[in-house]
Amino acid sequence: MNIPQTSFPRVVIIGGGFAGLAAAKGLEKQELQVVLVDKHNYHTFQPLLYQVATGGLEPDSIAFPLRKLLNDVENFYFRLTEVVKIHPDKNTIETTIGFLEYDELIIASGSTTNFFGNTNIEKFAMEMKSIPQSLNIRSLIIENFEEALLTSNIEERNALMNFIIVGGGPTGVELAGALAEMKKGILPKDYPDLDIRQMQINLIQSSECLLKGMSEEASEKAEDFLISLGVNVWKNLRVLNYDGKLVTTNGIDHFRAETVIWAAGVQGETIAGLEANCIIERAERFKVNEFSQVANYKNIYAIGDVASMASDKYPKGHPMMAQPAIQQGKLLAQNILAKLSNKIQTPFVYNDKGSMATIGRNKAVVDLNKWKFQGVFAWFVWMFVHLFSLIGFRNKSIVFLNWVYNYIRFDRETRLIIRPFKRKK
Amino acid sequence: MNIPQTSFPRVVIIGGGFAGLAAAKGLEKQELQVVLVDKHNYHTFQPLLYQVATGGLEPDSIAFPLRKLLNDVENFYFRLTEVVKIHPDKNTIETTIGFLEYDELIIASGSTTNFFGNTNIEKFAMEMKSIPQSLNIRSLIIENFEEALLTSNIEERNALMNFIIVGGGPTGVELAGALAEMKKGILPKDYPDLDIRQMQINLIQSSECLLKGMSEEASEKAEDFLISLGVNVWKNLRVLNYDGKLVTTNGIDHFRAETVIWAAGVQGETIAGLEANCIIERAERFKVNEFSQVANYKNIYAIGDVASMASDKYPKGHPMMAQPAIQQGKLLAQNILAKLSNKIQTPFVYNDKGSMATIGRNKAVVDLNKWKFQGVFAWFVWMFVHLFSLIGFRNKSIVFLNWVYNYIRFDRETRLIIRPFKRKK
Repeated sequence: MNIPQTSFPRVVIIGGGFAGLAAAKGLEKQELQVVLVDKHNYHTFQPLLYQVATGGLEPDSIAFPLRKLLNDVENFYFRLTEVVKIHPDKNTIETTIGFLEYDELIIASGSTTNFFGNTNIEKFAMEMKSIPQSLNIRSLIIENFEEALLTSNIEERNALMNFIIVGGGPTGVELAGALAEMKKGILPKDYPDLDIRQMQINLIQSSECLLKGMSEEASEKAEDFLISLGVNVWKNLRVLNYDGKLVTTNGIDHFRAETVIWAAGVQGETIAGLEANCIIERAERFKVNEFSQVANYKNIYAIGDVASMASDKYPKGHPMMAQPAIQQGKLLAQNILAKLSNKIQTPFVYNDKGSMATIGRNKAVVDLNKWKFQGVFAWFVWMFVHLFSLIGFRNKSIVFLNWVYNYIRFDRETRLIIRPFKRKK
Repeated sequence: MNIPQTSFPRVVIIGGGFAGLAAAKGLEKQELQVVLVDKHNYHTFQPLLYQVATGGLEPDSIAFPLRKLLNDVENFYFRLTEVVKIHPDKNTIETTIGFLEYDELIIASGSTTNFFGNTNIEKFAMEMKSIPQSLNIRSLIIENFEEALLTSNIEERNALMNFIIVGGGPTGVELAGALAEMKKGILPKDYPDLDIRQMQINLIQSSECLLKGMSEEASEKAEDFLISLGVNVWKNLRVLNYDGKLVTTNGIDHFRAETVIWAAGVQGETIAGLEANCIIERAERFKVNEFSQVANYKNIYAIGDVASMASDKYPKGHPMMAQPAIQQGKLLAQNILAKLSNKIQTPFVYNDKGSMATIGRNKAVVDLNKWKFQGVFAWFVWMFVHLFSLIGFRNKSIVFLNWVYNYIRFDRETRLIIRPFKRKK
């Protein structure tokens, strides 16, 4: 991989998401060589992917070039590659562009969609974990309406205008809300010759409440907001199959739809090579101790979505969100520096700053530690928290400008099929 | 195509570029049915494609959704499709989504890259006539540098850092300048472990001056600017072949390069079905009279790049640029309205407002009718003319914001490989 061997210990970080970047930033300007590898050359701000998918933001404003983040730092290297396997016996990673030795290895490879083994759904449903996937959803939504115009077959037309979102977590809720706003403000103007009232947005949640993990108030209010926007919210309903045409469930209701967006599960993006018992089954996350060390290994760490650190409060590991990832990354950097200078390391304690979700214009739910609120103020809080969490002044400005524009004009102008999405079927 | 038959005459417009849009706008709110068809659902502001290719702008800010442009107008229809053939005997167009009858047909299908029959170059070189093509160039540039990092073979590394731009018109000149600015300000920071001085930008022009069609001063100054930025300008040199590795020319110089961008020719994007003698050979443009009527047809018109209207000043037709397209579109709309109300039609006279090209920061050349100037002021004029020509307030704002940011920070932040470009070879 053409990286010089120096006298400094080499820390290799796999993944430039929230966790990996926080770790990298914490290791800046130390007597270390740091190598960050990622399969993209940019960091993705995942919480706003749904806005890219629904034409509210351009992809370039929620991505940030990784090299720029690191290019002021000496002895920092970036390589664009995918890691194939870890060889812990040789302290080496194997990638698509060659092998690389490490002294300390940080796995921050994030998460991927979990289809729970249903290959049909995997084949026909859309997922939304990356920018290209979000752009595919954007293209497909518009392609559906363009196609719906052309048919006089009512069943076919309705199927093209029927959007099934599976999973009532933040992703599903925010996407359903954004689609509902498109239905309200934009699509009737764009398609005056279609009856947009026939468009259906169905949000299907297998358990009995939305936004599991947030407060009861948040969950109920989010549901109210969605219903007021015209979303059909289905609870206690489990999607069993989708053949590209028909969604079958464990209830009496089935759905004929051309578009199913699967937001019902994520799993860790683990990497091969470590002992099998390091990985928690089904969740596909690396089992780590309170110092983020992967079970059985001294110099291999996992942080963020791909790590599962059991604690009293979180027996199944922390939620797969930005905050635990960032906090784990920061602390791990400190702990690695402490370890290398023989100081005492600090165990991780998650500081839950709260969580939030937006449903639409002036509609959001926020749970802080002791304060829970919903509505207009929550929406402004949501906006500013997300704006300030974005990396880069340019990105912040452009997202802000888009949001002001979209708010004033009730519009989402990036409804462009830049690359047509070729259906998998 | 599911478009209602009304008592109004139907005008069908093929293409939503500068010409087609100008015609459509001119036909608004008249006793007409207007149908616009395009293979993209957006209008592309082509003069800024090179900035998308070099990471200075996001694609979404130089594109504008066609439906939004037309959605306030009654009896206007848009269809996303490609036209396969015109059947003038039946007054019908054949598209990928069916047939459509017309009373008046406006062909504004624009232009495409002309490889002059060289299939090798067509296979291995990059072109830049659309947003996806620009994004491919963007991805390829970055991929090249990521790859160059990995090899210790000097020949291979140099080939990855050698950029050949064929064609010294505005596209070639602007692209060469933008690449030179990347070389100066951005790449050395992004790739501290590469010797960016080895990067070569070669601009190859077959005739003896750049910016043919502009004034001698503009041409000479543009060349000076390019040379001062470190671009190798080759004149009177013709590229004969490119096999994906080696560029051969009619001179003694050949170039080993992984990237060739072909900006050496455009031709009209004609559509099948009309009589063969309507089309000018080699240029592939429809021969039209001063009312934009295609030779031999009364109700078929061609405007913009795809039309060639011979006049004393322009015996080979007008230059393939935005201004003639817009002016022809506007006048044609008026003439069609005049024709339908039996009034006298006005022959087209091109009002040449001048032309301009930018080479880089503070470096542009402007030719107005009687006034020619170059340098910083020209650069500001170039910027504001392009800013105000962009469609949409949001696009204008975001482009402006990007330019201010790029100017102050000497940066181009959208250097993202959103979709990897798979090399054709």
